[in-house]
Amino acid sequence: MKEKLEKLKSILAETQDLGFAGAVLSWDQETYMPNGGAEARGHILGTLGKIAHQKFTSDEVGKLLEDLESETADLDPDSDDARLIKVTKREFEKNTKVPGDMIVEKANLTTASNMAWREARENNDFSLFAPHLEKLLDWNKRYVELFGPYDHIYDPLLDDYEPNMKTAEVKAIFDIVRPKQVEIIEAIAAKPEIDDSVLHQKYPIDAQTAMGNEIITAIGYDFNRGRMDTTHHPFSTTFGYGDNRITVRYEEDFFNPFLFAAMHEAGHAMYEQGVSKDLERTPLFGGTSLAIHESQSRLWENMVGRSKPFWDWYYPKLQERFPNQLENSDVNSFYKAINKVEPSYIRVEADEATYNLHIMLRMELEIDMMEGKIDIKDLPDAWNSRFEEYLGIVPDNDANGVLQDVHWSFGLYGYFSTYALGNLVSAQLWNRMLKDHPNVEEEIRAGNFTSIFNWMSEKVYRHGAKFDPQELVKSITGSNIDGDAYIQYLHKKFGDIYEL
Amino acid sequence: MKEKLEKLKSILAETQDLGFAGAVLSWDQETYMPNGGAEARGHILGTLGKIAHQKFTSDEVGKLLEDLESETADLDPDSDDARLIKVTKREFEKNTKVPGDMIVEKANLTTASNMAWREARENNDFSLFAPHLEKLLDWNKRYVELFGPYDHIYDPLLDDYEPNMKTAEVKAIFDIVRPKQVEIIEAIAAKPEIDDSVLHQKYPIDAQTAMGNEIITAIGYDFNRGRMDTTHHPFSTTFGYGDNRITVRYEEDFFNPFLFAAMHEAGHAMYEQGVSKDLERTPLFGGTSLAIHESQSRLWENMVGRSKPFWDWYYPKLQERFPNQLENSDVNSFYKAINKVEPSYIRVEADEATYNLHIMLRMELEIDMMEGKIDIKDLPDAWNSRFEEYLGIVPDNDANGVLQDVHWSFGLYGYFSTYALGNLVSAQLWNRMLKDHPNVEEEIRAGNFTSIFNWMSEKVYRHGAKFDPQELVKSITGSNIDGDAYIQYLHKKFGDIYEL
Repeated sequence: MKEKLEKLKSILAETQDLGFAGAVLSWDQETYMPNGGAEARGHILGTLGKIAHQKFTSDEVGKLLEDLESETADLDPDSDDARLIKVTKREFEKNTKVPGDMIVEKANLTTASNMAWREARENNDFSLFAPHLEKLLDWNKRYVELFGPYDHIYDPLLDDYEPNMKTAEVKAIFDIVRPKQVEIIEAIAAKPEIDDSVLHQKYPIDAQTAMGNEIITAIGYDFNRGRMDTTHHPFSTTFGYGDNRITVRYEEDFFNPFLFAAMHEAGHAMYEQGVSKDLERTPLFGGTSLAIHESQSRLWENMVGRSKPFWDWYYPKLQERFPNQLENSDVNSFYKAINKVEPSYIRVEADEATYNLHIMLRMELEIDMMEGKIDIKDLPDAWNSRFEEYLGIVPDNDANGVLQDVHWSFGLYGYFSTYALGNLVSAQLWNRMLKDHPNVEEEIRAGNFTSIFNWMSEKVYRHGAKFDPQELVKSITGSNIDGDAYIQYLHKKFGDIYEL
Repeated sequence: MKEKLEKLKSILAETQDLGFAGAVLSWDQETYMPNGGAEARGHILGTLGKIAHQKFTSDEVGKLLEDLESETADLDPDSDDARLIKVTKREFEKNTKVPGDMIVEKANLTTASNMAWREARENNDFSLFAPHLEKLLDWNKRYVELFGPYDHIYDPLLDDYEPNMKTAEVKAIFDIVRPKQVEIIEAIAAKPEIDDSVLHQKYPIDAQTAMGNEIITAIGYDFNRGRMDTTHHPFSTTFGYGDNRITVRYEEDFFNPFLFAAMHEAGHAMYEQGVSKDLERTPLFGGTSLAIHESQSRLWENMVGRSKPFWDWYYPKLQERFPNQLENSDVNSFYKAINKVEPSYIRVEADEATYNLHIMLRMELEIDMMEGKIDIKDLPDAWNSRFEEYLGIVPDNDANGVLQDVHWSFGLYGYFSTYALGNLVSAQLWNRMLKDHPNVEEEIRAGNFTSIFNWMSEKVYRHGAKFDPQELVKSITGSNIDGDAYIQYLHKKFGDIYEL
């Protein structure tokens, strides 16, 4: 048994090494690669992906897993080794079910589709993208059939991002959350608009960087095991134990985009920096799902970074950095400005009160498409009418509506819901943490984030992908993922800000 | 035949992709990787190297090569395909002769040896390094036996860097060059010292960078297919067709290190940028040997960058960039300053007149070690006495003498000679080019480097590794590698500068 386990681990280690190599190359592609390098980079990434896939889905791995499953039956089911075998088996079964032809087909479809999507968005012409989306929808319908029988046609898609979560669970959660968020937004709409002009001034980029470095170091991001670079779209990425990087973007005349992206991505990276070294070079080394990952990015970005105690701590330092910009502001008005609620077209710019609604409408449309309830050609209208229903406004054009996100052009269905689930989980974890550390708000006011960081490390980070998202949330909070905590959080926060 | 060739090419393409992936990871390690990432990076590079080696030395490749060699007998021997098979076969045979155990053994030896070398250099204590060098010498002695019979025990080592060159050839060349260079140095020593204080002033780094970008772009380095970053030791590296980067280092209070490293590394990179795209993802895609590579780096660094016509062009621009630093200088004194000859301990800081002597003494000591003519413990003394013989001075300590270079700590024997050979070849190519473009000096004075660049592209760059170094030099210049042109070049240049 021990020998087989070591053999399996050595194959998995090499597979993960290849994945990390690909991650470094992708990071370089977004940060530093000259334009001329794109074609060769495509070849290299293709080769790395192909070899990793061959290694992982080999008959040898299949046989080792089969043998090990019976030979390790008396291991503690929560031990690293038992979990390693369980998670690897699940991934192996998923990966081996998809024929190589279909993987190649999807790669080809998405290349064409992504180009068409860019053109469609630029020209604000959905019809350019529609035939490609049609093909990718067809591909997804064939894909899910590989995983039948299922309770719901959308389940296999969701499972790719949230292992073992079902569509019915997510729908049930969202059905409760949605009307409550709509209610909050309507209540806010009746209140006077917040003046956020303080944010729309010149904030020199060097000073923004210095501020960002100070803040993310304070919350727990370790620059000895990471770094921060600039990309068009911010992201976080992992190259193995000890190297977890983030990227950010800057707007010199708007305060928000850099700092909150930095805190968001640092949240993702702190999760990965906190995974136990015992799990390195295995499939357990990394976040367990996109929703749990997003719970950490949103927790540090919003529950910490957009909180009043945080700015009680940092606002005086901010004033030192930007004395002219802030000379007519104070911490209360600044706090309100960064929390201004305003329904808007673009998901990535949405505030906390409206964000989930952007997600829900996307998931609902995805389900409708998969169920055949909606024709691709009718998607823009469906988008707009649902948008009006939830957010009270109608996008001025498809580029700001149905064409705004890149995900569908890559055939990614099931991905969006993880963003909203992450918000809900962040509030559940926060509330549970407050029971152990009731003075956290005071600590934040003193610039001390140790209790939060250590609690998250202990409860979430160190476990990596050992536990499924529902399993993890339940073991920490005592309940499954639900929206109560998040709705309470919104009520409290925006009740105070808008005097609801 | 066609099918087998395609199969071989597809395996070689993946092998090269893995090599390029490793190159990106190594570049990142030197430029941007946080300290914490070192251990994981070692794992990933190890995995990439192992898989590439397995792929390249597989029985399948052996069989394909065997079949193709007979099936392609009627191909034009200079065609890409014929050369591909020839070069691949040579590399395959070399690679398959070395047992895996020996590769692992060397990796372990060099890790320990490099650490010991660092400590020895820091403490100026050769005895800390000696036992490690002893083991690596023993390894090299066993290594060369894998390639017997040979004419000279040093041949297989040299062959790793200069395919098909023999120790006897190199020794014969160096034996002619050495006394002539010693003569030149002695003649210069009798002349008044050049004042180079103009170079030892504050040159702000941003201004140095702007100057470097302007100059290397002018000579032909393509930033659309490259970039320049900062590392402790400058290098150039290739990540596939269209991505050839360089790195440089800066000294704010000394003019030389940045600019001449930038031109040197740009020379290497321009060679690689100029390899025909037809050869991409094959073993022919890259420079053919270290000496030919060095001929390009040294040609652009020295024959162009340290020439009078070059500064006739650039000195007025330099004055605009650094008006205060240059207010008491003129182009003649500046030109003399950057060409000051002065025997010194450190190879990488040596001027053109002394550089080759640093190399020759290293090669001679390597040969003595391989032939068993010298004990490792006597190496420092042997170094110092030969140093005095060639350069007229004795290193003040072993850190500035026998311990100065990293190469031996990695077990690299045979590598140094390529630096001197590169100098010799640069002059041979330059002279041949002058026959086709007699007005090149005038063109340089006008900031026009097109004739040189196009000539090198046509004669050298585009062929990649199709031709062996001697074969290439002979086909271009009509003679084998020799030192006449370089000695003439030194006489002319330093004769003028020092009025010899």
